[in-house]
Amino acid sequence: MQAVRIGLLGCGTVGGGVVKLLRRNAAMLTAKLGARIELAGVADRSLKPDPELGLTTELITRDAHALVTRPDIDVVVELFGGYEPAQSLILAALAAGKDVVTANKALLAAHGDRIFKAAEKHGRFIGFEASVGGGVPIIRTLREALAGDRQRAVYGIVNGTCNYILTTMAERGAEFADVLAEAQRSGLAEADPSLDIDGHDAAHKLCLLVTLAFGVALAPSQVHTEGITRITLADIAYARELGFTVKLLAIAKREDGAIEARVHPTMLPSRHLLASVGGAYNAIYIQGEALGSTMYFGLGAGELPTATAVVADILEIARMRVAGANSACDHPLGYPFAKIKPAKVKPMDRVRCEYYLRFMAEDKPGVLGRIASVLGRHKVSMASVMQQERAPQVTVPVVMRTHECQERDLKLALAEIRRRKIVRAEPIFIRIEERL
Amino acid sequence: MQAVRIGLLGCGTVGGGVVKLLRRNAAMLTAKLGARIELAGVADRSLKPDPELGLTTELITRDAHALVTRPDIDVVVELFGGYEPAQSLILAALAAGKDVVTANKALLAAHGDRIFKAAEKHGRFIGFEASVGGGVPIIRTLREALAGDRQRAVYGIVNGTCNYILTTMAERGAEFADVLAEAQRSGLAEADPSLDIDGHDAAHKLCLLVTLAFGVALAPSQVHTEGITRITLADIAYARELGFTVKLLAIAKREDGAIEARVHPTMLPSRHLLASVGGAYNAIYIQGEALGSTMYFGLGAGELPTATAVVADILEIARMRVAGANSACDHPLGYPFAKIKPAKVKPMDRVRCEYYLRFMAEDKPGVLGRIASVLGRHKVSMASVMQQERAPQVTVPVVMRTHECQERDLKLALAEIRRRKIVRAEPIFIRIEERL
Repeated sequence: MQAVRIGLLGCGTVGGGVVKLLRRNAAMLTAKLGARIELAGVADRSLKPDPELGLTTELITRDAHALVTRPDIDVVVELFGGYEPAQSLILAALAAGKDVVTANKALLAAHGDRIFKAAEKHGRFIGFEASVGGGVPIIRTLREALAGDRQRAVYGIVNGTCNYILTTMAERGAEFADVLAEAQRSGLAEADPSLDIDGHDAAHKLCLLVTLAFGVALAPSQVHTEGITRITLADIAYARELGFTVKLLAIAKREDGAIEARVHPTMLPSRHLLASVGGAYNAIYIQGEALGSTMYFGLGAGELPTATAVVADILEIARMRVAGANSACDHPLGYPFAKIKPAKVKPMDRVRCEYYLRFMAEDKPGVLGRIASVLGRHKVSMASVMQQERAPQVTVPVVMRTHECQERDLKLALAEIRRRKIVRAEPIFIRIEERL
Repeated sequence: MQAVRIGLLGCGTVGGGVVKLLRRNAAMLTAKLGARIELAGVADRSLKPDPELGLTTELITRDAHALVTRPDIDVVVELFGGYEPAQSLILAALAAGKDVVTANKALLAAHGDRIFKAAEKHGRFIGFEASVGGGVPIIRTLREALAGDRQRAVYGIVNGTCNYILTTMAERGAEFADVLAEAQRSGLAEADPSLDIDGHDAAHKLCLLVTLAFGVALAPSQVHTEGITRITLADIAYARELGFTVKLLAIAKREDGAIEARVHPTMLPSRHLLASVGGAYNAIYIQGEALGSTMYFGLGAGELPTATAVVADILEIARMRVAGANSACDHPLGYPFAKIKPAKVKPMDRVRCEYYLRFMAEDKPGVLGRIASVLGRHKVSMASVMQQERAPQVTVPVVMRTHECQERDLKLALAEIRRRKIVRAEPIFIRIEERL
């Protein structure tokens, strides 16, 4: 029986899950494929043999470079993460005629151009389902299921750590720092959580989603990126009163040939399906011209969920190999590489949104009028205002919702309100997506 | 440039959508594929030429049998629906070396064995993404994205008409018959709505989902099927008070090698994501051993949403053809046909559920005790009771929720309660799925 042989780079959480899944479901996979999937080598510096998982001494190596060019290996699964040596290893594997599976969104978002170009040059496939949404099959859905449609917009909850923190703040009434500390203790957040909570991980994922959805290339530096560190319990509570839920969303929209690409805390209607996505779950909500709205929901991280995505990619490649297909026509990004042009990105200043605003102002007459007048002068009009009397305090929160306006005008207005010392603290603004 | 040539059977709502989509997105599809997708012929008895859609007189034929065997045609898209002539045409197309795309769930559920076997014999592919969930890519997700995992359970809202009716009843407080009549006027329900509201359409779809999820064959007659016609506004209101939402669910579970397969109105926790799927939307919620819970949401019907699924299948087949792959390894059902054995179905009597029960009883002491005592004798224990005093009425509703019990015991208990005339009307029961 034919075998498809795997070289695995990195046997940590996800890599270990892949080994388990391939072993546990070996009979099923062989039945589906008509060929065996064999683990032929594992490169990992700190891995100890584990007979129960079939990880024998012979299988384990420290020489990743030798592994990826070994003639008996068909598919290289890169789970080292980071830029190097991951990139060099992937390029070496492609040059040696291997297909590649990777979960490395940071690498693909930053250096995807080089990697996808090399794959096409060598006639090889790159599976990267595990790079966005963990086990949620959003990559192949955009590439295949939605391939006949033109996408209008993508809204993703693509960082489980942020979603867990925001959900827990809302459900338990706990402040950001406390929930983060707890998430770190339980392993849901990294010791250095900045990649997640500052929005960069979501921005990396958005770059991949944009290319698949719109057929254009986008660099992480082109994504307006804000994290969740400035979200307070107070704003979550006011949001709820206004009928909104706060989520870190990765948003991309296509309009008149330009792409809007941004990652930031967003208030979305609490009755919206995306608002019900709680805990560490991920969901990607897509609007297509023909298909309308679809949503894809599941666990965005974790050993076996992510391993499921890796194994799906291994299977897809194995199927092509068994069928003797040349991959000339199965483009990892949906399009031949040459068709993918740099995205024309709409500057954030020109993006139009509705906004939630919170000012801390002295509790005396005229303050609201002065705020409204500055906003109005900058073409920002108020949709509603919520001013609560909290008698004994010197400052009271003034919460308002604006009509749609241009980001630049809002920023200028807030700068003037600060400069003129109309309010006591830095004004808070959170963008609202009402019509998704 | 290479062309992949399509023969279209039926140019009604969905067929018209396919023609539009192929035409509107022709440049994009050609760029993605590196080949053109050409409409080469349309068989439809009542179609008039439409130059705007490129439907010329030359393209249109009444002779479907001639069309499906024409040597210049690569892919036959069957959108006639029904058993015949659809089945004969598909079999003829496969025998003539064409790949096939179809949205015909009724045909595939009833005669899939013959059709999939023929496809494999002739080395051809059958795409049927449009047959379940309309534009929701659940077929390829089960076949590919989740292929490395073992599924535990599938819960589907797969009939948009039923979901629209139940959602509208709940939102507007309207009775079943009124909402149905309105849905018929607006085209959301058929003039003869029985296929939808009696649950048979959902049962057809469940058969396909079961094969893809569990690798076993299931006939519609093996699915315990109940429709939504007996659901009243009163039960929807009581459900809400208990924290439940009523949905028509297609449910399949695998346990100890046996399959539970049933379509019936189901109360599920209102906080569950599936409960938020309103209107004519569809959603399929899947639990996998490794992946955990994922959900796929979108429009389950309609011209362009369904056409998107058909075009995705056309593209997939076109890709294989352009890549020169033999389809020996890309099995439409995930497994080679010979590996798919008949499902061992757990009889409905042996299924265990929690139940919502409503009795109309005389408002006098002892009735609840008599009901409870009959239930108890049949090993059905109550979890909670809601008895409302409606003084002026002779009969009052007694609403209760049971602990998990066996369907057979519940049925025997209800039969005894009826026989002994403890209550005034037929007892109402609705199954509860709490732990999905």
